[in-house]
Amino acid sequence: MANCLVAQSGGPTAVINASLAGVIRANQLNPLYDRVLGGLHGIEGTLAGNLFDLTDLSGREIEVLKQTPSCALGTCRYKFSDEADFQRLIDVMDENDISTMFYIGGNGSMSTVAAMTAWAAERNLDKRFIGIPKTVDNDLGLMDHCPGFASAAKVACEITHATRMDYDAYTRPEVFVLETMGRDAGWLAASTCLTGDVDLLVLPEVDFRRSIFLEQVRAKMEQQGSCYVVVSEGARWYDGTYLSANGKAADGLGHAMLGGAAGRLKSMIVEAGIVPRCVVQDLSRVARSSNFAMSLVDLEESYDLGVSAHMRSAKPEFTGQVVGIRRGQGSDGGYNTEFFACPAADLANFVRPFPSEWILPNYQGVSDKALDYFRPLIQGEPKLICENGIPLTMHPFNRR
Amino acid sequence: MANCLVAQSGGPTAVINASLAGVIRANQLNPLYDRVLGGLHGIEGTLAGNLFDLTDLSGREIEVLKQTPSCALGTCRYKFSDEADFQRLIDVMDENDISTMFYIGGNGSMSTVAAMTAWAAERNLDKRFIGIPKTVDNDLGLMDHCPGFASAAKVACEITHATRMDYDAYTRPEVFVLETMGRDAGWLAASTCLTGDVDLLVLPEVDFRRSIFLEQVRAKMEQQGSCYVVVSEGARWYDGTYLSANGKAADGLGHAMLGGAAGRLKSMIVEAGIVPRCVVQDLSRVARSSNFAMSLVDLEESYDLGVSAHMRSAKPEFTGQVVGIRRGQGSDGGYNTEFFACPAADLANFVRPFPSEWILPNYQGVSDKALDYFRPLIQGEPKLICENGIPLTMHPFNRR
Repeated sequence: MANCLVAQSGGPTAVINASLAGVIRANQLNPLYDRVLGGLHGIEGTLAGNLFDLTDLSGREIEVLKQTPSCALGTCRYKFSDEADFQRLIDVMDENDISTMFYIGGNGSMSTVAAMTAWAAERNLDKRFIGIPKTVDNDLGLMDHCPGFASAAKVACEITHATRMDYDAYTRPEVFVLETMGRDAGWLAASTCLTGDVDLLVLPEVDFRRSIFLEQVRAKMEQQGSCYVVVSEGARWYDGTYLSANGKAADGLGHAMLGGAAGRLKSMIVEAGIVPRCVVQDLSRVARSSNFAMSLVDLEESYDLGVSAHMRSAKPEFTGQVVGIRRGQGSDGGYNTEFFACPAADLANFVRPFPSEWILPNYQGVSDKALDYFRPLIQGEPKLICENGIPLTMHPFNRR
Repeated sequence: MANCLVAQSGGPTAVINASLAGVIRANQLNPLYDRVLGGLHGIEGTLAGNLFDLTDLSGREIEVLKQTPSCALGTCRYKFSDEADFQRLIDVMDENDISTMFYIGGNGSMSTVAAMTAWAAERNLDKRFIGIPKTVDNDLGLMDHCPGFASAAKVACEITHATRMDYDAYTRPEVFVLETMGRDAGWLAASTCLTGDVDLLVLPEVDFRRSIFLEQVRAKMEQQGSCYVVVSEGARWYDGTYLSANGKAADGLGHAMLGGAAGRLKSMIVEAGIVPRCVVQDLSRVARSSNFAMSLVDLEESYDLGVSAHMRSAKPEFTGQVVGIRRGQGSDGGYNTEFFACPAADLANFVRPFPSEWILPNYQGVSDKALDYFRPLIQGEPKLICENGIPLTMHPFNRR
């Protein structure tokens, strides 16, 4: 019996480890593989042969792993694309008797799954590659939503509501601007509208118009004496330049380093003389990898996707596939999770924007349809195991 | 039977409403006052006669109020100090048949309690003023700790741990700098050391020395390839200038507008060429008024302080007093909360710094004694009532 490899890639989420736990647990229930080996620090450590044997984690360890945010195996920002890397991955798999690789990641990782599958097929190699999606940006195609997104949305909603209440406690004239992650898609920023606390919403999907935005800020201040703005880090001008653009270098993958859109809006608002001060709160990483406001729906779906990917891999021809979630309807008429698989090639490197038909004009937020989409995803609070007042977490395998 | 007045002042906390709920509930259990009137927007709205009758909140409403962060009555930044204001407060009390005022606040509010008590005594006025402390800064004298601090510390700890895990998932050379509130006292920043995740800690209690700090950052990067820094917003140079000082105006009370210390450290670290990039996370208001990581100990103590203040006011001579918490020992040898009262004048306008004997040299964090002090305070997680995925909150009385 051969072994399998699991690796994580891209930015951390609150529930990426739940998918990892699902793969490990599924192999305990049905040992399709002799060993479940974790690739440390994503593809970077995997190529260097840094693996960690996860096969025999105890039930308790798996429970703790499920509630551990970030990436317990570590991650990387590494451009995996050339022939030498492909060959090196096959070599590592051969050296460790690995037949199947599960890759938990976002757009880039799903492209890797597609590319490796094609490369192995051309060479008649008996290696399989299976994708398990995750991204707080919620921008993968074909699926209803991505694991990790709902927990980030829930943290964002909780903080939006708390900071709105903090803001509303005062009478002084100021504008509040909250910034969320999300890269080029506005899903995470838009989700904060669930709270009913957002006055103005600035998304990457709408070309930013300074004059219209400032007019709206002024109108809110005049009408209600307050204005709570949420902006996505990827908000941009009509020419595609990010609002936050301030000469920052791109990272090694050609991604722009975002962050700073809220500060930019603050400057505009204060310079326009609308209010003398403006409070900026940048959620940054707090939203993506916190476990204090995990969505139970998200946690369970992410775990189940790990199990589903493992189970489906019982069929030898199951390769180059990504497992995903569709929105079904339960017998009670409510939300129900449905699992499916599709070719990784079909969603590789495609960024799914927040639907323009759900965006209200003049930065007024999103439609009821959008709220209906978001609402079921952030439901439920897992009972976390706490120790000394904070949730217990797994000591990262990449730091042992 | 006369009425009582309750008002909130200063910055919001996660549990200031729990103290309010305690006063309201105590009066339902033992109606010492005919009506419990809330002063809206702190002393500012109170002076304008804006009151809200809280006497008959339902049991359910009181439960929701307890878990509502921020200030449900609203707050203000208003310098309450001149004779005209004092007389106006007495007039509002007379107009509304109010004999007793409960004032929930920090240093400034406790000074107000002392000043109003003295003023009323000089004029033989039959009015009483009772202080209920709150501040996330934990800088009030005479008491073991301040309500609101522990929940802020718990949020700070949870986010420190989550962002440390996020940071540790990567291999690239960068430094992480987290900034907390706390004004001129380092309690909140220091509490994050409970996580074991903090490599370097910069507190207002230690004059900042650039060269020593950068030497330590460099050493951590060389030793372990990572460096996680926590800095208090009030960190300062030997001459008292804030690290964050960048020409910002003071607010109406002469308080400097803090925030930006982490950005300043980032600049120093990058300019010194230690690492090419540095991640900054400013917790700002997220720590002070979030209810997703409330400390159960803090929540219960804050509620009980409201009850205690009301109960003690059954004695006609109880005025000019502040109720507070002492650290007792339970029959099991563990932490136990003890309630006491002391004259407001004894703690007015005194800022209690984080003890210098608990600070390790060279920014290495805090001693075990400090951790022993913090640990019992962040214990326990209240079961929050949630609706549609986020904790239910009371619609602020000042926005009705």
